[in-house]
Amino acid sequence: MTPSPADLVITGCTVLVHDDQEGTGPEIGFREDAALVVRDGLVESVTTAAAAEELSALERIDARGQIAMPGLVNCHTHAPMVALRGVAEDLPTEEWFNDVVWPIESNLTATDVELGARLACAEMIRGGVTCFADHYFAMDAVAAVVEECGIRAHLGEAYFSSQGPQGREKSLEFALRHRGGAGGRITTALAPHAPYTVDDTDLAATARLAHDHQLPVHLHASENRDQAEASLARHGVTPIEILRRTGILDTDVLIAHGTGILDQDLPLLQQATGRVSVATAPRGYLKFAWPTTTPVRALYDIGVPVGLATDGAASNNSLDVWEAMALTALIQKSTTGDPRWLTARQALHHAGVQSARAVGLGDTIGTLAAGRRADIILVDLTGPHTQPVHDLPATLVHSARASDVRTTIVDGRVLMRDRALLTIDVPSVVGELGRRLPTLLDRSHGRRIQDYDT
Amino acid sequence: MTPSPADLVITGCTVLVHDDQEGTGPEIGFREDAALVVRDGLVESVTTAAAAEELSALERIDARGQIAMPGLVNCHTHAPMVALRGVAEDLPTEEWFNDVVWPIESNLTATDVELGARLACAEMIRGGVTCFADHYFAMDAVAAVVEECGIRAHLGEAYFSSQGPQGREKSLEFALRHRGGAGGRITTALAPHAPYTVDDTDLAATARLAHDHQLPVHLHASENRDQAEASLARHGVTPIEILRRTGILDTDVLIAHGTGILDQDLPLLQQATGRVSVATAPRGYLKFAWPTTTPVRALYDIGVPVGLATDGAASNNSLDVWEAMALTALIQKSTTGDPRWLTARQALHHAGVQSARAVGLGDTIGTLAAGRRADIILVDLTGPHTQPVHDLPATLVHSARASDVRTTIVDGRVLMRDRALLTIDVPSVVGELGRRLPTLLDRSHGRRIQDYDT
Repeated sequence: MTPSPADLVITGCTVLVHDDQEGTGPEIGFREDAALVVRDGLVESVTTAAAAEELSALERIDARGQIAMPGLVNCHTHAPMVALRGVAEDLPTEEWFNDVVWPIESNLTATDVELGARLACAEMIRGGVTCFADHYFAMDAVAAVVEECGIRAHLGEAYFSSQGPQGREKSLEFALRHRGGAGGRITTALAPHAPYTVDDTDLAATARLAHDHQLPVHLHASENRDQAEASLARHGVTPIEILRRTGILDTDVLIAHGTGILDQDLPLLQQATGRVSVATAPRGYLKFAWPTTTPVRALYDIGVPVGLATDGAASNNSLDVWEAMALTALIQKSTTGDPRWLTARQALHHAGVQSARAVGLGDTIGTLAAGRRADIILVDLTGPHTQPVHDLPATLVHSARASDVRTTIVDGRVLMRDRALLTIDVPSVVGELGRRLPTLLDRSHGRRIQDYDT
Repeated sequence: MTPSPADLVITGCTVLVHDDQEGTGPEIGFREDAALVVRDGLVESVTTAAAAEELSALERIDARGQIAMPGLVNCHTHAPMVALRGVAEDLPTEEWFNDVVWPIESNLTATDVELGARLACAEMIRGGVTCFADHYFAMDAVAAVVEECGIRAHLGEAYFSSQGPQGREKSLEFALRHRGGAGGRITTALAPHAPYTVDDTDLAATARLAHDHQLPVHLHASENRDQAEASLARHGVTPIEILRRTGILDTDVLIAHGTGILDQDLPLLQQATGRVSVATAPRGYLKFAWPTTTPVRALYDIGVPVGLATDGAASNNSLDVWEAMALTALIQKSTTGDPRWLTARQALHHAGVQSARAVGLGDTIGTLAAGRRADIILVDLTGPHTQPVHDLPATLVHSARASDVRTTIVDGRVLMRDRALLTIDVPSVVGELGRRLPTLLDRSHGRRIQDYDT
């Protein structure tokens, strides 16, 4: 019997493989002159270019001179906030929230969210991002965009205690309704905003709901040192201690930022009975002039995965996870005072295995191996800025850029080929969004969705 | 009499203009729906798109949806070191120099330098860099590449005191012979390496030669805090004090890095009778885990221009000045603890006026205005990562990337059009360089060109 043709065969590339999928060490390797065989949305095999010649396939991509690597994961963002890219520049955190972002967000409609999400997905697909963890409002609209454009996403409907019990109920309802959506590309989480906007009662209720419904939790916590210190001053405990005592650390929890994680928090994170991970978005910490960054090394020492993220474009100005990868390496060296930490190999490990774990997909994506979902990007290293190649991890992390991603594939479907987006019409989205901006940006009403007061 | 046609007219773009060409404030503005008229290598006028319709021109570029801005200036690099991109990763400064870079550089030939410079110019032109200040060896080869590929450059032949008086004589001979070369695109400097490798006698001799021949000086000084402290311990003075007492501060001097500039150095820099400027290359400081960055704010306060730079690609991994612009803004916010410093407008001012001054071309380039050399880049902001545009300086600095530069023009000549390089054949350079790398990288001989011992 002749085997049926594969859906897609990618030939002639160098494939980045994670040799140690269970550890958190930087064990990555490269297979040269290799091929990837894709069938039914999965990587069927990583083989040799020669072996792939023999195979029949519905579609072939000649990827000579390119690196195939797992698609990037944006482990914490607010995708629709691309609509606010650049509206709140050079401001301290409190003014950014209270004077600009939260007043504008009080105008948000589902259509704004949909258009923002579509523009964000276009940016992410072009930047090699194949999965994003989103934490925002009107998330039905985001789910619809994910379904339509073919990207993978881990979605949560954000809520504050100021919404009353309806907030967490809506978050639960969203998570249950969309779990497994878009042909399995959508996974979901409960999404309380943060310990400074969601009270202990609601956090404890969230932890119980997470257990009852086997859902993970995605929230902001100890975002910066000010928050940690304010929490200690007001409540006598750190934000991480609040997560422990409310049971959140007994769930599978993704903590955004954690630049305010203190030494006393580390044992709590290590002893958590849930799977704890942290998302780091270093660009915004620099831009807000926060005094610390995510303590990646301390988290590594206690076995907590750290995924890469951009946060929203209203603070980060882009959804460029490639830049987050490079900045994580650079800022870790700078803040630890140790040029040997964090290496380019480690940065690629954060981008792959650790980011996949952070969004609860550690068994599914994050590495290119038989049985994994076929979330693949092809990176062109022939440009003058990436030549010569003496050290492939360094070339990828420190010389290549998001714009060197030529092809983006999710679940075996090509979403961008040779830099051309196949599922999103950018000019149309930009035009439609542009017409809505005057209304969206109006702050004359004096409302805001919440007060930032850590 | 009908006026003769302009050489080039660029229409429909938004033009970034520096309204205050003398101050160091961030006074930039944007003229929408504008046009640039270029004749004889100069900007003849910045006018309206409508007015430009009437003009005849030998060449027209329709730049609708694009921003025209002054080409970027790489104020301190070692262009040929792109050949060593990625050879010395994750190392402290001393090991980087002594164990890898200086041993490899003992193998350098003029052909290696030529190929490296050609690859570097390709990378820079593609990244919107129209002028670079180079400080390296075998600089005749770099000058030849500059002549051939059409970029602008400020060149100096580096020397150490270990070379004897021949070092500084060669540097002078190079500077005099190439000054005004390549149709005026080449300017030159005397290029002692640094106070820790060039003794006071040689520095004082260099200062006298600079005066006698009206040449500027380009050198490394107080690169990092360790160097400043070692200098204090050994000589009782800082590297900047050495520059003062040897007369270097009485010349027009470009100081690379200066992350070790101490408070006590500031009055010396302020009182210098020469035009002093500093080049900052922040990526490398993070990568080497240096404890401080260039004190841009303190230098601003005393009126010293700070230009943007990448250093060589062996430390920085790229010659991406666009990234240096964004990182300068981010790292300044982070290190001063003030999110309001340094704004995107200020970053653009560093990229334009201040960088031009740093390389001694403050009257010639760095702004788009009648009478300036036509060193122009066109930046495409239609990508999803640069939309919508609420704040054009922020979009340029924090969202756009080097890869958004579509067209690069120097002295009115188009060197890259729609991302295609017109004067350099990258695959041929990469191939030829690749064949030479095994010999270049050989360290079995145990030699090095110098010892790093601050």
